[in-house]
Amino acid sequence: MAVAEPVRTSGPLTVRIAQMGGLVEQQLVDVIAAVERRDPALAAKVKEADTEVDAALLRIEADVTDRLRRGGLSEAVLREAMSALKIAGELERIGDLAKNIAKRSRVVSAHEPVKSITGVMRMGRISLRQVTEVLNALSAVDVDAAMAVWAGDDEIDELYNSLFEEILGQMDRDEASIAAATHLVFIAKNFERVGDHATNIAESVYFLGTGAHLVDQRPKSDVTPMIDTRDVAAGRAQ
Amino acid sequence: MAVAEPVRTSGPLTVRIAQMGGLVEQQLVDVIAAVERRDPALAAKVKEADTEVDAALLRIEADVTDRLRRGGLSEAVLREAMSALKIAGELERIGDLAKNIAKRSRVVSAHEPVKSITGVMRMGRISLRQVTEVLNALSAVDVDAAMAVWAGDDEIDELYNSLFEEILGQMDRDEASIAAATHLVFIAKNFERVGDHATNIAESVYFLGTGAHLVDQRPKSDVTPMIDTRDVAAGRAQ
Repeated sequence: MAVAEPVRTSGPLTVRIAQMGGLVEQQLVDVIAAVERRDPALAAKVKEADTEVDAALLRIEADVTDRLRRGGLSEAVLREAMSALKIAGELERIGDLAKNIAKRSRVVSAHEPVKSITGVMRMGRISLRQVTEVLNALSAVDVDAAMAVWAGDDEIDELYNSLFEEILGQMDRDEASIAAATHLVFIAKNFERVGDHATNIAESVYFLGTGAHLVDQRPKSDVTPMIDTRDVAAGRAQ
Repeated sequence: MAVAEPVRTSGPLTVRIAQMGGLVEQQLVDVIAAVERRDPALAAKVKEADTEVDAALLRIEADVTDRLRRGGLSEAVLREAMSALKIAGELERIGDLAKNIAKRSRVVSAHEPVKSITGVMRMGRISLRQVTEVLNALSAVDVDAAMAVWAGDDEIDELYNSLFEEILGQMDRDEASIAAATHLVFIAKNFERVGDHATNIAESVYFLGTGAHLVDQRPKSDVTPMIDTRDVAAGRAQ
C-alpha cells in the first residue's frame, strides 16, 4: 500500500467539524448534569440544541459537496471528504442520543431515585471523555490517540453490562422502580452507544491518518444479550 | 431552486445498493422467524450475515470514492454519490440492529414466552415492510412511494409506544418475566429504529429525486420517554 499523503488539518471542513463536535460535547455535559440535578430546564436545552447539531450536519454535507464539485481531487482531499461525512454523521447520532437521554430524564426524575443512577452517570462521564479525546485526536490527526480511544470502549461496555444486571436485579427487588429503572437501562444503553460512535470516529481518524481501513477485530457494543439474568433473579421470592 | 437533473438508476452503485438492501432484508426476515420459532441456528445465521453486510458497505464506499476520483462530476453524479454513502450507512445500521435482535433472541427464547412477543413481531414485520418498500422506491427513484414510507413510520412508533407500556405492565404483574421482558423491550426498540432508518432512506430518495432536502417536520423516533408508566403500575400491589 502506498504511503498516505499528508492530510490538511486546518481546512474549513476541519473547523466545521470541530464546531459540531463542540456542540455535541456540550449536549453530553448538559444532559449528565440534567439527570444528576433533576433539572428539566437543562434537559429542554439539550433537546433544543439538537436543531443546531442537525443544521451543522447539513452544512458539512453541503461543504463537502462544494469541495467535490470544485474538482482537483487528490487522494488526501478525497480521504478528508469521505471522513468528514462519516464523522459528521456519527456526531449527529451522538446528538440524537443526548436528546433521547434528555427526554427520558423527565421520567427518571419523576420517580424515587434508582440506586444505579450513580453508575449510569459514571458511564456517561466516561463516554463524554471518549468523545472529547477522539475529537482531540481528530484535530491533531493523531492515530495513536485515536487508537487509545478505540481500545478504551471496552471499559464502557463492561460497565454497561454490570449496570444492566444490577438494574434488573433492582427491578426484581423493588417493583415500584420498574418504570424509572427501564428508562435508566435505556439511558445506560444510549451512553454505551455514544461510546460506539466515538469508536467509529476513532476508526475514521485512523483512515484519515493512514489511508487504510482498520480491520475491526474488537467485539463492539454490548454483550448483555448473553447475560441471562436468571442468576440475578434467583434471589427473588417466587 | 433549479429543476433537478435526472438521476441514473441503473448504474453499478444502484446495483450494489440493491444487493446490500437484499442482504439486510433477508436478515430481518430471518431474525423475525428466529424469534418466533425460537431457532438459535437461524439467529446465528443472522449474526454471520452481518460480516457480508459490512463488506458491502466498504465496497460501496470504495466505489463512490473511485467514481469521485474519475472526475466529471455533474450535479446528478454528486447527488448519487452522496445518497449512496448515506443509504449504505443506513442499511449497515439496520443490519447491526438485526444482529442485535438475533443475540437477544437467545435470552428471550430461554424463558417462558412473554405475552407481548406477538405484538413485537408484528412491529418487526411492519418495519421489514417499510425497508422493502423504501428499497423499491429507491430503485425506481419514486419520490411519492418514498414519502409514503416516510409517513408510515408513525404506525411503528405508535405500536412501539403501546407495546412499551404493555411490557412494563407485564413486568409489574409477573416478576419472573423481567429478564426476558427487558430484552423484548430492546427488541421492540430495535425494530422501531429499523423503521427510523427506513425513514432516513426515504429522505435520501427524496433528495435523489428532487435535489432538495426534505425539511423534517415529522416527530421521529419514540415518545416513550413521555410515558410515565405509573398509570400502568397503579394496578399493582404496593
